[in-house]
Amino acid sequence: MVTLCPVEKSIQAGTDRLARAAVNVGLNVRHGQQVIVTAPLEAVPLVRQITKHAYKAGASLVTTFYADDEAALARFGNATEDTFDTAADWLADGMATGFREGAARLAITGGNPALLSGQNPDLVSRASRAASIANRPALELITSFAVNWNIVAAATPAWAALVFPGMPEVLAVPKLWNAIFDASRINGEDPVADWAKHNDQLHRRANYLNDRRFDALHFTGPGTDLTIGLADGHLWAGGSSKAKNGVICNPNIPTEEVFTTPHRLQVEGYVRSTKPLSYQGTLIEGIEVRFGQGRIIEAHATKGESVLQRVLDTDEGSRRLGEVALVPHSSPISQSGLLFQNTLFDENASSHIALGQAYSECMTEGGGKTPESLAARGANSSLIHIDWMIGSGDVSVTGLDAAGGSVPLMRAGEWVTAV
Amino acid sequence: MVTLCPVEKSIQAGTDRLARAAVNVGLNVRHGQQVIVTAPLEAVPLVRQITKHAYKAGASLVTTFYADDEAALARFGNATEDTFDTAADWLADGMATGFREGAARLAITGGNPALLSGQNPDLVSRASRAASIANRPALELITSFAVNWNIVAAATPAWAALVFPGMPEVLAVPKLWNAIFDASRINGEDPVADWAKHNDQLHRRANYLNDRRFDALHFTGPGTDLTIGLADGHLWAGGSSKAKNGVICNPNIPTEEVFTTPHRLQVEGYVRSTKPLSYQGTLIEGIEVRFGQGRIIEAHATKGESVLQRVLDTDEGSRRLGEVALVPHSSPISQSGLLFQNTLFDENASSHIALGQAYSECMTEGGGKTPESLAARGANSSLIHIDWMIGSGDVSVTGLDAAGGSVPLMRAGEWVTAV
Ligand SMILES: [Zn+2]
Ligand SMILES: [Zn+2]
Ligand SMILES: [Zn+2]
Ligand SMILES: [Zn+2]
Repeated sequence: MVTLCPVEKSIQAGTDRLARAAVNVGLNVRHGQQVIVTAPLEAVPLVRQITKHAYKAGASLVTTFYADDEAALARFGNATEDTFDTAADWLADGMATGFREGAARLAITGGNPALLSGQNPDLVSRASRAASIANRPALELITSFAVNWNIVAAATPAWAALVFPGMPEVLAVPKLWNAIFDASRINGEDPVADWAKHNDQLHRRANYLNDRRFDALHFTGPGTDLTIGLADGHLWAGGSSKAKNGVICNPNIPTEEVFTTPHRLQVEGYVRSTKPLSYQGTLIEGIEVRFGQGRIIEAHATKGESVLQRVLDTDEGSRRLGEVALVPHSSPISQSGLLFQNTLFDENASSHIALGQAYSECMTEGGGKTPESLAARGANSSLIHIDWMIGSGDVSVTGLDAAGGSVPLMRAGEWVTAV
Repeated sequence: MVTLCPVEKSIQAGTDRLARAAVNVGLNVRHGQQVIVTAPLEAVPLVRQITKHAYKAGASLVTTFYADDEAALARFGNATEDTFDTAADWLADGMATGFREGAARLAITGGNPALLSGQNPDLVSRASRAASIANRPALELITSFAVNWNIVAAATPAWAALVFPGMPEVLAVPKLWNAIFDASRINGEDPVADWAKHNDQLHRRANYLNDRRFDALHFTGPGTDLTIGLADGHLWAGGSSKAKNGVICNPNIPTEEVFTTPHRLQVEGYVRSTKPLSYQGTLIEGIEVRFGQGRIIEAHATKGESVLQRVLDTDEGSRRLGEVALVPHSSPISQSGLLFQNTLFDENASSHIALGQAYSECMTEGGGKTPESLAARGANSSLIHIDWMIGSGDVSVTGLDAAGGSVPLMRAGEWVTAV
């Protein structure tokens, strides 16, 4: 017999609720649907709970790919330099085929965000670029919502050590699990009902913004005076959405944002980040950036600037915006005061913008969704999509319409109008 | 600091030697080559050692797929019955693409052989059949030696419990590891040199048999009087072989057999198994089978007969032979006296025959290797390939040539002629 201590019991109950939410709210798995899971090795217990609930919900087959941080590190410690442009294109293509055949996609995030921070940055960047190129077809199916998909998080020792530096692992991991449970809105009596209510709020907010059809958003705050033109036929989205296979899913758990597509050529002014950006294990802090005609023409950071410059040089689209998102300063993740160093959480703590690839979901059908027509309407494309935080209790956002009118949207980080 | 107890230290040293043998003798990884690994979750430490040695040997990328017995069981416990004909064809196709692009294949065996023995046999068989069909293209690339490949074993708690029933896990797992190390010929000072010597022996034996060009083999022993016609242009193989990508690899560690292709239409007589056959967790014991014109026309077993009958009914080729192999009774695995319930070990303890698919490697190039020409020359094809043991210290094997001559090959289980 194995007995669990009270902490383990409470985490096991939490991960079971999280697993149910991932399967039934996040993916909304359909009868007979395959599910493709990716997860860090440390997330085996959560994966098993997810697998069980997915089969209960009718999944025909759950296939999990585990990522092992130690194996990833072994490459940097032992492989020869000329091999770092290699990626598992055969696997990425296989997964893309799976999605085309209707498989749902569940990603469990939680690996060590700082894993590669001590490695040769040139090799890291080459390996990462090769992986991005290989994964592009699969990723496009996900970002274009060909199938229902979801990301949830699992607490791992390495991640917990970053979020709670100096705290013993035996305390830090449960503390991170609890922060994940709080942020993921699964602590109530009925998480499915709670998520229905939350989705309703986000849908109302997106509808409100879609009805206004703003031309641009104007952000002001300390170090920030930025006007973000919105793409022609941009759409605001938030909360659950309907994938092209007809399934209504919640792609992110947690999610607190409403977001849309900036115009890639129409961003002007300057902006200062309000939280550190964790990029492949490097914290980039105090980002200050100037835009001209949508392009970043000057970029500085008080820490990690060389990494930032490298990211900006990824490709033609990496200096332009693919997303702008509004999150009230009072969001539960923001109120936790934690820097998770994980985009899934940090982007939901604050209004943010993303460098790189736009979501075609955030564009109307009307103008066509071929790569060419999306680009012509202002949607950006790139190998990268990196969110960074520009909202805070000191930031205001104003909607600008075509007629020259302006509508206050956020003041001191909070929505001005209830929906 | 973490200290290892002496048992852990000795296992870690053994798995490191096994990892080096798998990479450098088994696969013989080439510079720039990708490696695709499959492994049970319990084999993480061995996978990490293999990954490290593969990168040291020049691998460009090592990708591991972990199989989780608990997740597999969760399907049988929770999924609805109508979903069991589903397989991850997208993944199997992706792996096949990887092999076509030159990736090497390393399989780590060791999952619980009895995992599904308590499940609904109809569902087990449907799931297994679906997986076989999906994996066929990838498997054909392996069996036809398109790339270098290797199978090694890892001791897992569930497997150790089967091999050493009643023994506490803390003793059984190290005992199984040591049995694996012994059988895998990696305990000497220089395992690479030891394997070179062993391969040389097996090559000489295969050459001896190829030079004789026997028409048939005649097995006699208790309950056995079986004449196995050999395919036209059959080739004997054993030990390392050269894959079509030019790499000399050792597909199995351990290996003690020389083997060739029977003629699918020319097997006559009866045969009794000499060891239990472990098939998907069921032990099939006391198999007695009668062949007519190459086909099993009568089959009995003292235990597990219904599973045997189900296997024989898989497809047209599952009642015919795809392999005949000779292993002396004095082989180290045979001398260990253990029933591993794992084909990689048990087939190397005894002369054996296999139901199902033949190896095209065991056929000359001359007559062509299209599926049609292979079949015309007598090579069998099937979704299955199941080895079962028919050799022992009481079994004799005689080579029969076209002119009616006969050459004693094995007497009382041992080779008659040294090579
Ligand atoms: Zn966002
Ligand atoms: Zn984003
Ligand atoms: Zn064999
Ligand atoms: Zn065989």
